[in-house]
Amino acid sequence: MDVDALHDRARALLPREVYDYYAGGAESETTLAESTSAWLRWRLRPRILRDASSVSTATTLLGTPVALPIGVAPWALHGMAHPDGETATARGAAAADALMVVSTTATRSLGEVAAASDGPKWFQLYRVHSPAYTDELVRRAAQAGYRALVVTADLAVLGRRLRDAANDFVLPPRITMANHPRGEGGPGSTLGAALETMASWTFDDIEHFAGLTDMPVVVKGVLRADDAQRCVDAGASAVWVSTHGGRQADPAIASAHALPEVVDAVGNQVEVYVDGGVRRGSDVLTALALGARAAFVARPTIWGLAVGGAEGVREVLGELAGSLSVAMALCGVSDVTDVPADLLTTA
Amino acid sequence: MDVDALHDRARALLPREVYDYYAGGAESETTLAESTSAWLRWRLRPRILRDASSVSTATTLLGTPVALPIGVAPWALHGMAHPDGETATARGAAAADALMVVSTTATRSLGEVAAASDGPKWFQLYRVHSPAYTDELVRRAAQAGYRALVVTADLAVLGRRLRDAANDFVLPPRITMANHPRGEGGPGSTLGAALETMASWTFDDIEHFAGLTDMPVVVKGVLRADDAQRCVDAGASAVWVSTHGGRQADPAIASAHALPEVVDAVGNQVEVYVDGGVRRGSDVLTALALGARAAFVARPTIWGLAVGGAEGVREVLGELAGSLSVAMALCGVSDVTDVPADLLTTA
Amino acid sequence: MDVDALHDRARALLPREVYDYYAGGAESETTLAESTSAWLRWRLRPRILRDASSVSTATTLLGTPVALPIGVAPWALHGMAHPDGETATARGAAAADALMVVSTTATRSLGEVAAASDGPKWFQLYRVHSPAYTDELVRRAAQAGYRALVVTADLAVLGRRLRDAANDFVLPPRITMANHPRGEGGPGSTLGAALETMASWTFDDIEHFAGLTDMPVVVKGVLRADDAQRCVDAGASAVWVSTHGGRQADPAIASAHALPEVVDAVGNQVEVYVDGGVRRGSDVLTALALGARAAFVARPTIWGLAVGGAEGVREVLGELAGSLSVAMALCGVSDVTDVPADLLTTA
Amino acid sequence: MDVDALHDRARALLPREVYDYYAGGAESETTLAESTSAWLRWRLRPRILRDASSVSTATTLLGTPVALPIGVAPWALHGMAHPDGETATARGAAAADALMVVSTTATRSLGEVAAASDGPKWFQLYRVHSPAYTDELVRRAAQAGYRALVVTADLAVLGRRLRDAANDFVLPPRITMANHPRGEGGPGSTLGAALETMASWTFDDIEHFAGLTDMPVVVKGVLRADDAQRCVDAGASAVWVSTHGGRQADPAIASAHALPEVVDAVGNQVEVYVDGGVRRGSDVLTALALGARAAFVARPTIWGLAVGGAEGVREVLGELAGSLSVAMALCGVSDVTDVPADLLTTA
Repeated sequence: MDVDALHDRARALLPREVYDYYAGGAESETTLAESTSAWLRWRLRPRILRDASSVSTATTLLGTPVALPIGVAPWALHGMAHPDGETATARGAAAADALMVVSTTATRSLGEVAAASDGPKWFQLYRVHSPAYTDELVRRAAQAGYRALVVTADLAVLGRRLRDAANDFVLPPRITMANHPRGEGGPGSTLGAALETMASWTFDDIEHFAGLTDMPVVVKGVLRADDAQRCVDAGASAVWVSTHGGRQADPAIASAHALPEVVDAVGNQVEVYVDGGVRRGSDVLTALALGARAAFVARPTIWGLAVGGAEGVREVLGELAGSLSVAMALCGVSDVTDVPADLLTTA
Repeated sequence: MDVDALHDRARALLPREVYDYYAGGAESETTLAESTSAWLRWRLRPRILRDASSVSTATTLLGTPVALPIGVAPWALHGMAHPDGETATARGAAAADALMVVSTTATRSLGEVAAASDGPKWFQLYRVHSPAYTDELVRRAAQAGYRALVVTADLAVLGRRLRDAANDFVLPPRITMANHPRGEGGPGSTLGAALETMASWTFDDIEHFAGLTDMPVVVKGVLRADDAQRCVDAGASAVWVSTHGGRQADPAIASAHALPEVVDAVGNQVEVYVDGGVRRGSDVLTALALGARAAFVARPTIWGLAVGGAEGVREVLGELAGSLSVAMALCGVSDVTDVPADLLTTA
Repeated sequence: MDVDALHDRARALLPREVYDYYAGGAESETTLAESTSAWLRWRLRPRILRDASSVSTATTLLGTPVALPIGVAPWALHGMAHPDGETATARGAAAADALMVVSTTATRSLGEVAAASDGPKWFQLYRVHSPAYTDELVRRAAQAGYRALVVTADLAVLGRRLRDAANDFVLPPRITMANHPRGEGGPGSTLGAALETMASWTFDDIEHFAGLTDMPVVVKGVLRADDAQRCVDAGASAVWVSTHGGRQADPAIASAHALPEVVDAVGNQVEVYVDGGVRRGSDVLTALALGARAAFVARPTIWGLAVGGAEGVREVLGELAGSLSVAMALCGVSDVTDVPADLLTTA
Repeated sequence: MDVDALHDRARALLPREVYDYYAGGAESETTLAESTSAWLRWRLRPRILRDASSVSTATTLLGTPVALPIGVAPWALHGMAHPDGETATARGAAAADALMVVSTTATRSLGEVAAASDGPKWFQLYRVHSPAYTDELVRRAAQAGYRALVVTADLAVLGRRLRDAANDFVLPPRITMANHPRGEGGPGSTLGAALETMASWTFDDIEHFAGLTDMPVVVKGVLRADDAQRCVDAGASAVWVSTHGGRQADPAIASAHALPEVVDAVGNQVEVYVDGGVRRGSDVLTALALGARAAFVARPTIWGLAVGGAEGVREVLGELAGSLSVAMALCGVSDVTDVPADLLTTA
């Protein structure tokens, strides 16, 4: 089943307010809508007769070997999509040999998710409860075997998500943010209540986390060249271009449009990732041609999870992997780590 | 309730021809339609990790301190939307600590509106009845405590508003323009009859009003650099970029598109304001990044007034203020008087 | 009633195949659709405080004084829209003191139309029957008082009008092209049969007509700078930018888009006119700002004719005149012969 | 009946999965949709008064004289559209004196199609079964009288055609790829099974085929200047700009957009052809003005074939020829081998 079809199935299966929570964006949802269409600013310039009989999608991400340059982006509350929550996602990602980034706001504890599969995993960090507890989460993640720390930097305050406001969305019964120490993210709580403000975070906090752990630090939510350089200066090993699924600033520049300036600024210093609207192999190939090391997807994996649990997640990732392989072969690209920039032209 | 929802409610509540009067524009309504979409020529370039824990929206407009860089633009005939008319609007604006600009064509007298709240107010001037009477209105406004005079300069003749023509729109029973001396703006009269032609006004009239009163003079309806400079030369303390809600020249350049050239011309000499299609905090933030001191809204406050009287006006302004604060925090902007131009990129 | 409303009424009144004949264009109707939208490539930059208390739309066209820079473009077969045919159109145009260009393919003879009103008229020429007869038509037009000869140059062959083909459109009963000598344009004949090929015409034919008559010669259908100059070199006193109502070449450049290059090439040598998609005063004002001396309309007058005969034609022209006057006043333009180019910006 | 009407009729006549097979494209079908709209990036700049009384569409393609610069592009499986399959297409093309390119994946053998008419034909080559058998096909084609060999180079792997996947499309009963040696392309087989991978093909294979046969070699599927030059260097006598009907790489640059760079690179060395979205004479004229020697169409001929067999194919080609002739006359072009580049402007 292709990604659009899985989306349709998931929409039919999920309660309306849960679907809206996953599908929605902030304010006018301009950035949300543009996140997918932005990739269509470019067209492929296929190369012929290049002997594409062997196509490899294998790569490494901060040294972690993976079968795909396509990872599972962090997203809160997988438990609303499937009873097994993030443990199912972890099994599905492992089955595809894809990297999974596990969110602080998971419905299963970071240890439980780590143990659910032996696939490669990174941990995504929000400030929770207190600075000390947040540091404690970082230490636990390292101990549990997470291989990198992804600090989300674009949530100074929660974006205005009008669908959630109209639905009076709160965490449903039996849904708990398992990494929260005192039930702040428990049933009936709002997202705002669950996420203590991170408004005070600065680049010093990146420096703090980089010093706190041996895990390489990735800063997620970068949309500008100047910020990218400051992340690197503060010790980041990678930057992640993202609009947070169109759920924070709106109308913000789409990830696909911000990616080139970030690559120009820091692409020769650190790895650059991107998420936002990636729905086909051609989107991934476009991201790589623009200089990204990998592209991440969130909503597609949620739809897969809702429809088929771990197997649904694997199916979505397999679908994307197949789409990428075909796009590579048709463009005469045999290696994802060597995608030429001239593969693209503007539409 | 967000602004779009209030609009829907108001449309359902108001008589069709009254709704059309408020909602409609001139000729093909191209400028009307473009007034909102024009803000989407730009996208935000959010800045991260800037310590946005304290965000201030307070500013001054020609020395008047206000809580928001968002004011209530002048609009005729509030009495058709709510029995309390402009006095309700004044109470709502005051509750939000926002500036209100009261129209010559109000359904309550300028004195009555001035007395309805202690919030900051400016008076908007049309030529009415005669030059002498018009001057008399200016003097009364100063005495009533209005802090600035906003001279509307884009109504040489009334725009061709085809909805009103098709509806044979006239002032309904019991609706009177209270500042008109002899019932010209009474029930049954058309807008054309109520507004004596101002076609003969020139920049000399700006000089005349600037000399007539101690109130600073704002010229509203400026869409060009050359006109902006001539306003300043004639003694204006501020210029206001506006298409009159898309109700005069059509298809005229949208306010959002004209703003940059006006700021370039006179932004270092006087304050520059803008109205037209401002519906979200991001629109306001965009206007400020382009060099405006404040943005004004009219129709949203009419919808709020129609739905909830003074409280509806306050709700709309609160909604916009909240949206602005979140946009600022997510863009790393802590002060509305210091919004960097590089916050924007073209879409 | 505005132009759009008259159009709707006319559509309801006319037989489908007659409506399609008037409304349709060639091939994909891309040029037809673009003829109106092309004017929206520009936006007005209104000027304020210019003393617009006196606005004049009077001008001269090749020396003919007219009240408006808006003329009635030639169009075949008015008799299908109204029993009085072109004589009604002539009376309506005269009532508005507007120039009418009478077509060779009129359903009333050129003499009859000339006599129907004392308004200013030009005669539009196709090659009919034979070169000798065509020359004879030119002489008759001069004798009947037509003040200029408009040679249509964009009909080397008839455009492929798919609506007419699908409708098997032929001239209805009692409809005759009165200027045709032997019934070629009689009931049951197709347009193709009625119009002998003019494929062989060259610039030499322009020279021929310029030498044949004292009437100034206008070449209609010019869309390029090089052709415009060749028309002037061949003796044309004016060139007329037109796509023949989107009924000939398709997808051809829209008149509004071709106008600037033609004005650049010959605007300082001869008068330049334009037709195609002119529906509002702002379109006319745009054409004048781009350097046209006048704009012409055809379909709007057909709709007026169908709905109200001579009075309908007058109403349409009055509507356009009013719209133009308001646009001028709101842009600080007091004279149609002096419209500044900087009134426009691109959308 | 015009091309759109024939398409509608064909859609109604064909089984859904067969229609989808013909009509569909790859992935998001972006390239498919853009293939037609891409021609509208340009507008014609008609030339007047050029004596267009004699218009010739005759030309030669690699020395083959044809009546039209419009050929029938190769397409698989004509037998699903009409029982006579490619033999009917061949008779229809011959009736229009147009070139037909016969596909390897035809439902009739290359010999049978060659014998069906005496119209000019080229043979399109895929790798089938084995290199040796593929070479054998080339020899058979030469013996059967095909005048050129068109090597399809854009099918390293089969594009992801989601309609076919959703329909579980396989070859219907009684449909066989007649040039396949052992039933690989028989009833029940998928396209993927029928087409052995050509992923290993390189420019060396072009050199191989150029050396193998006296027929001139055309490389089809070129979308880039560098590839075009490499084809020429490898011995190609012509290159064919194509996206394979939007059925391979997606979102790839549209043929109409890639054509100029290919012409710039090799247009003075070899003939350049183009297919993709050609639906009207103006598309053909645009292609010629951009430097193509001819344009090819596939789907329109399939629709004609489905509706009317050989006569339907002839009707479609006649419709296109008529449309081209009118476009030429209206643009002052009398010879398809001499179309000036300045006939075009961007939209």
